[in-house]
Amino acid sequence: MKVWRFLGFDDGFGFDKAYLVGCVTAGTYVEGFMVGEIEIDGFDVTDRIIELVRKSKFGIQLKCIFLDGITFAGFNVADVVRINEETGVPVVVVMRRMPDMERIRRALRNLEGFEERIRRIERAGEVRRVEGLFVQIVGCGEEEAKTFIRASKLKGKIPEPLRIAHLVASALVHGESKRF
Amino acid sequence: MKVWRFLGFDDGFGFDKAYLVGCVTAGTYVEGFMVGEIEIDGFDVTDRIIELVRKSKFGIQLKCIFLDGITFAGFNVADVVRINEETGVPVVVVMRRMPDMERIRRALRNLEGFEERIRRIERAGEVRRVEGLFVQIVGCGEEEAKTFIRASKLKGKIPEPLRIAHLVASALVHGESKRF
Repeated sequence: MKVWRFLGFDDGFGFDKAYLVGCVTAGTYVEGFMVGEIEIDGFDVTDRIIELVRKSKFGIQLKCIFLDGITFAGFNVADVVRINEETGVPVVVVMRRMPDMERIRRALRNLEGFEERIRRIERAGEVRRVEGLFVQIVGCGEEEAKTFIRASKLKGKIPEPLRIAHLVASALVHGESKRF
Repeated sequence: MKVWRFLGFDDGFGFDKAYLVGCVTAGTYVEGFMVGEIEIDGFDVTDRIIELVRKSKFGIQLKCIFLDGITFAGFNVADVVRINEETGVPVVVVMRRMPDMERIRRALRNLEGFEERIRRIERAGEVRRVEGLFVQIVGCGEEEAKTFIRASKLKGKIPEPLRIAHLVASALVHGESKRF
């Protein structure tokens, strides 16, 4: 099979600082990383992701951008549709469990920009079960998303760029990865 | 072959801040990361490495610690013998080229603790050619070191924990990995 390039984003945050970590893989082979900062409960994760992808030498050849959930650093909600439009790359939001929308709504209610945050979650489309994961897909079909997940995972269900971005983000905040 | 656990350390530094990044692999499979800070041209890299290994859940099962060169963050020279003694794990210093000792001596001459820095480099022992790399080995034999390098590399010559630690350290400083 031809080797495809993937990018996975996860966040790590402590009391006052939040990191956005991207990991680029060719198939499952680690090629590089991107690190940026985002605001806790802010609105900047979408711009930061688009910026990192655009600045990147990897950008034009990406097959898929994986996000570890749609909310980063608290409730900094990614606008997945805009990420797809502005990068031209399909975006797959990956979750281990079915998100509890009622709980999310309740948590968001006290934050400024409540409506906009909810709108972004809804725009990302229905949550589907694909390859043992719960995903929202923008910019490609379910079959394609399935192929991307299969081509990027090694052990377990999680695509390598996402799994490794998570490990780095966790180490940035705690000094050592928490889950492995 | 039984899967062995390896740890690779590299540094990344900008104008005022230097990171020490450790990557843990089982064979070539990424299991986790460690991140710490060290002083540019300081003397603390040895303590930081020992500390990270001891605090780590991975510590007791490590087969080998790889270092990307013996100097970190400028001329913060690692005391490889002490790292080996205090962690009980073999240490292999990996270099792509034969180090130019005369140049290093000249560069070190202006730094405080010149003698101690030189002593540390010399204590790490002779530089040998192993698996297309230049290495200094403490705590195991050349054959063993060779086996560790073979078991931890995927493409190219560099052990995965070292290659990936380098990519993360580089992204921490520059926002994106420079080499991949």
